[in-house]
Amino acid sequence: MPSTMDILAINTIRTLAADVVQKANSGHPGAPMGCAPMAHVLFSNFICQDPQHPDWISRDRFVLSNGHGCVLQYIMLHMLGYNLSMDDLKSFRQLNSRTPGHPEANHGVHGIEVSTGPLGQGISNAVGLAMAEAHMAATFNRPGFQVISNYTYGITGDGCLQEGVQAEAVSLAGHLKLGNLIMLYDDNHITIDGDIEVGFTEDVVQRFESYGWHTQVLGDGDNDVAGIIAAIQKAKAVTDKPSLIKIRTTIGFGSVLQGEEKVHGSPLGAKDIIQLKIKFGLDPEVHFHVSDEVYKHYHDASARGAAGYNAWVKLMQEYAVAHPDLASELNRRLNNELPTGWKDLLPKYTPADPAVATRKLSENVLNKIALSIPELVGGSADLTGSNLTRWKGAVDFQPDVSGLGSYAGRYIRFGVREHGMAAICNGMNAYGGIIPFGATFFNFISYALGAVRLSALSKHQVIYIMTHDSIGLGEDGPTHQPIETLASLRALPNLITLRPADGNETSGAYVAALENRHRPSVLIFTRQNLPQLEGSTVEKTLKGAYVLSESANAKITLVGTGSEVSLAVDTAAMLAKEGIQARVVSMPSWELFEDQSHEYRASVFLDNIPTLSMEAMTTLGWSKYAHASCGIDTFGASAPYLLLYKKFGLVPEAVSEKAKKVIEYYKTRTPESKMSPALF
Amino acid sequence: MPSTMDILAINTIRTLAADVVQKANSGHPGAPMGCAPMAHVLFSNFICQDPQHPDWISRDRFVLSNGHGCVLQYIMLHMLGYNLSMDDLKSFRQLNSRTPGHPEANHGVHGIEVSTGPLGQGISNAVGLAMAEAHMAATFNRPGFQVISNYTYGITGDGCLQEGVQAEAVSLAGHLKLGNLIMLYDDNHITIDGDIEVGFTEDVVQRFESYGWHTQVLGDGDNDVAGIIAAIQKAKAVTDKPSLIKIRTTIGFGSVLQGEEKVHGSPLGAKDIIQLKIKFGLDPEVHFHVSDEVYKHYHDASARGAAGYNAWVKLMQEYAVAHPDLASELNRRLNNELPTGWKDLLPKYTPADPAVATRKLSENVLNKIALSIPELVGGSADLTGSNLTRWKGAVDFQPDVSGLGSYAGRYIRFGVREHGMAAICNGMNAYGGIIPFGATFFNFISYALGAVRLSALSKHQVIYIMTHDSIGLGEDGPTHQPIETLASLRALPNLITLRPADGNETSGAYVAALENRHRPSVLIFTRQNLPQLEGSTVEKTLKGAYVLSESANAKITLVGTGSEVSLAVDTAAMLAKEGIQARVVSMPSWELFEDQSHEYRASVFLDNIPTLSMEAMTTLGWSKYAHASCGIDTFGASAPYLLLYKKFGLVPEAVSEKAKKVIEYYKTRTPESKMSPALF
Repeated sequence: MPSTMDILAINTIRTLAADVVQKANSGHPGAPMGCAPMAHVLFSNFICQDPQHPDWISRDRFVLSNGHGCVLQYIMLHMLGYNLSMDDLKSFRQLNSRTPGHPEANHGVHGIEVSTGPLGQGISNAVGLAMAEAHMAATFNRPGFQVISNYTYGITGDGCLQEGVQAEAVSLAGHLKLGNLIMLYDDNHITIDGDIEVGFTEDVVQRFESYGWHTQVLGDGDNDVAGIIAAIQKAKAVTDKPSLIKIRTTIGFGSVLQGEEKVHGSPLGAKDIIQLKIKFGLDPEVHFHVSDEVYKHYHDASARGAAGYNAWVKLMQEYAVAHPDLASELNRRLNNELPTGWKDLLPKYTPADPAVATRKLSENVLNKIALSIPELVGGSADLTGSNLTRWKGAVDFQPDVSGLGSYAGRYIRFGVREHGMAAICNGMNAYGGIIPFGATFFNFISYALGAVRLSALSKHQVIYIMTHDSIGLGEDGPTHQPIETLASLRALPNLITLRPADGNETSGAYVAALENRHRPSVLIFTRQNLPQLEGSTVEKTLKGAYVLSESANAKITLVGTGSEVSLAVDTAAMLAKEGIQARVVSMPSWELFEDQSHEYRASVFLDNIPTLSMEAMTTLGWSKYAHASCGIDTFGASAPYLLLYKKFGLVPEAVSEKAKKVIEYYKTRTPESKMSPALF
Repeated sequence: MPSTMDILAINTIRTLAADVVQKANSGHPGAPMGCAPMAHVLFSNFICQDPQHPDWISRDRFVLSNGHGCVLQYIMLHMLGYNLSMDDLKSFRQLNSRTPGHPEANHGVHGIEVSTGPLGQGISNAVGLAMAEAHMAATFNRPGFQVISNYTYGITGDGCLQEGVQAEAVSLAGHLKLGNLIMLYDDNHITIDGDIEVGFTEDVVQRFESYGWHTQVLGDGDNDVAGIIAAIQKAKAVTDKPSLIKIRTTIGFGSVLQGEEKVHGSPLGAKDIIQLKIKFGLDPEVHFHVSDEVYKHYHDASARGAAGYNAWVKLMQEYAVAHPDLASELNRRLNNELPTGWKDLLPKYTPADPAVATRKLSENVLNKIALSIPELVGGSADLTGSNLTRWKGAVDFQPDVSGLGSYAGRYIRFGVREHGMAAICNGMNAYGGIIPFGATFFNFISYALGAVRLSALSKHQVIYIMTHDSIGLGEDGPTHQPIETLASLRALPNLITLRPADGNETSGAYVAALENRHRPSVLIFTRQNLPQLEGSTVEKTLKGAYVLSESANAKITLVGTGSEVSLAVDTAAMLAKEGIQARVVSMPSWELFEDQSHEYRASVFLDNIPTLSMEAMTTLGWSKYAHASCGIDTFGASAPYLLLYKKFGLVPEAVSEKAKKVIEYYKTRTPESKMSPALF
């Protein structure tokens, strides 16, 4: 039997969850009420955190993967003494509140490690948090100095376990033998469509065993506090496997509707809450109540966390003496400072340098900077030899026992797991001290958008290195040629896209990606060779767009990105032969450009001549800058790439013809005419 | 030992694959050479198809999930007598060829059932093909009349088995007990990053068992033809489980580089091909050679398929006598004809009707038409009660033994598996006779984009029913509020997006989705109530955009979509009070609008007054039609939705202020001024 204290604390969580959702008149009471015992155990007995030092690097991490149950997390944070007040609970899901409908990392509330709610993300982030811990520990710990040493605990529901992103991440977690990861599976048999028997009848435990996880099953998660404690202890004792503990619970425990889908996503109603409180021996008239002894119980847990923090501070002081260089390096990374001088290492190019694919130029950058920026940790979704993301001398991130690398290794073999990769990168960045990167063909970032979106929403600095960025990949054909992809990403808030045109812009793209500490970046590289341009520089690249070649008497501005900037240059040369002057603008990043002053922007795109854009993908969006566009609004085709460029009209002959039409049309313009790109 | 004929046929496939890739100087020889024995067995001993009647509904289906190995599929189709010549093989991956770098369905070559290459899709499509067969068989077969009776066979590599979309689909396949699905796993231990030990060490067989699949393991897939035959026979004998047969093979079998990653994605080179042919006892000087006996062997297989087809034709004649109504119905569906009169059933509304959420209006449509259009088969990714996609009287698609429904049921419980759902829908549509639909929150179509893209590329009529389409979903907050999503979809070629504003437009949206037989559609519905508009009709909706309210002396056009059309109406009314006349355009579908004549389009967006757009999501793309835009270029927030609309300036007060500024700015315009939306 659980102790009186346990019962009181658990029932306090349950009734408070019911109160919070009731007042908001919106939200999900079922999961918090069902998961209250496991959350109580985790925070009372295991999780070591100090609410006064929420950024302590060696704290245990907690992830609520079933983020719709966030009332549970908010309540725990409140009771533990985090910066989340009872008033915050009372303003759950209200305008400008600090307690949104799903947990949002970097939204001001400490203790929310990652944004969850989109199903499958949290558990995958947890894998990333655990990988980050393993890496940081292997990198910085020394005998007697376990300066990095924590567990990642999480709760997941049935929904997350059905998602593909989860399958990808937990398979990798098993391969990586992440003993520091412990997931509690809230097995309540209920999803929104009803009982899981309608569509989710797989043997989850057997599946996790197939991945190499340690598994346990617990029959009564509603009451068996001692059982939960014992299971977690057992999981901690298994150090070479991640752990899944399947815990049978009753959704909405205590409600008259307990165990039914109806209690999942709607307030219980006043009447049910009264019976609930009476059933639990609590005062039915009192809402939002936490007794002093319950507060004290959790504050005691936090005090143990604070003691852990203080011991760590002392350890770090000794570490600084015993290992001054390591300590200084760790502090630099925890302070989010980049190493000095790294930018001097970036390759620079002149037009005399040979034409090179930007994916190869990206590899050049990585070869130059990877050793100097040890927080850069990442890899490819099984396209290393194509993405060219593995720098010389890289060591794989692998369990030591595998003989394939070590946890101190920085190159991750993600496998063919694009979505999992992105979600793991979010988790690694959330851990701290790491700038993660993931790579695949540009087209297949579409597989990962669910997680890329959360990189942007949660302000995670994740670098997506995407190669084979257009029809320029050639023979692989339309299944692999992005058309809509860059437009999709440009539409995503807080994300930076960068499609460099040559070596200097590639170096600039890495500067932007590395120096923007709270935005994800997508670096977009070609498979095919591109010439080194006259006039490109790192500094101009950081403006997002710039005039590559000016012309005093220009009749048109030609703007391109990436591989189509040299097309713009060639088109301008062809027009010049006919006596038509054209300006050329290179525009590697819309987002960086839009951060510039109005004056600067107006100097790039002039108001008194038309603009023609060229980009080997959808024209959607370009009407913001251009009066007409050359692009591809159908799917691509399979053929050698030079033939494709011709087929799709992305050669100087075709573009210059269009440019002349635009110039002629512009002359006929009146104050009333719309000069709409749709006319072309 | 395999027979002499088997050996000759298999080695012919291997050398021909090497020749094809060598001539193209691009492509993947490794998988075709390694999978030649299993492909040989499948087509020689099992697959029943008639190349002269490639659309025969009851043919066995074959899916090459590792689509990069498509040379294998092209070779088999050629040898079986499909419309794919030796010249087609010689023009592999060349401009305008019929043999692109990855298999493309509906690209003119018969026998390519689905587009594969993007990893994980093919095996998930195969699940859809098998579900479609089960459904069509349960619907149309009668005692003595197995008019629908086929297997779906597939080959999958390691790559597909790492993808999340695969995990989702095969979990559902196990739940559904699809005994008609047999997948051969080409276990060659090689991925692009090298040996699978670097990142894919899960126990695949155990995992499939956890899903409820029947599994077998075969040790020598390079030579053991009899073993492959026996395993497939055994798999066919298991009628209540899908089957996975893991077959150990050697990638690039016969090459000097066999078993290595290097043979995966590059031509072997002339020298290696010479030794290969000598090793196999073939003439090293002769390329692109298929001996008469090998042709005869596969033509004999096709002849057995033709006999099967002829027997089926006879059966159908008898079926037409015994079950005339069913036969007529089956023929209608196979001829891709919609039933007559269904459009008369669509609900119509007047402004006197109450305000209703468009998701509810969508449910009204489904309730009216679902019984009349029995080919409409689909469901939700565990959001049935929110998406409102289950019509009255619907029966679940479930195994009979489950007691939860039957294979004749048309409502699919997809589980929380968005990406798998979309890939399965592609497979179901590819089968024939079915218009599949899938539903989730609009934001989570991002999880499924990899498969949605292939709906569009492969011209599959799949209907995506997406609800909770904006900040209008309110309290769930930014993790669930789409911002970039509609722009992403508008950028995707051959896809139709429809965001209806009221009941008549909702009816119209379904007309467009159902009548466009070769394009996928995304129907985008609100959570919140919307008024029934004056002037909306089904017919106007089909134009994509139309003038909802004209004004003789208008100073501005206000255009909106979905929930923001009534905002435009209210804004126009507010402006009218100030004596400013405004036109209102409703624009449910950009794509349908862009199919209209220039004259029509010019009558909707006038050239002599400015246009202001309003849409509760990213403004990206709107500059194509509008001079200024009201929208949301940040993430949303968690709060009751009316407060969010106000916060983001999407209320008549804010929009009318902006409209006045646009009108004023437009007056100052000169022929030289750009009138760029970026200025607002």
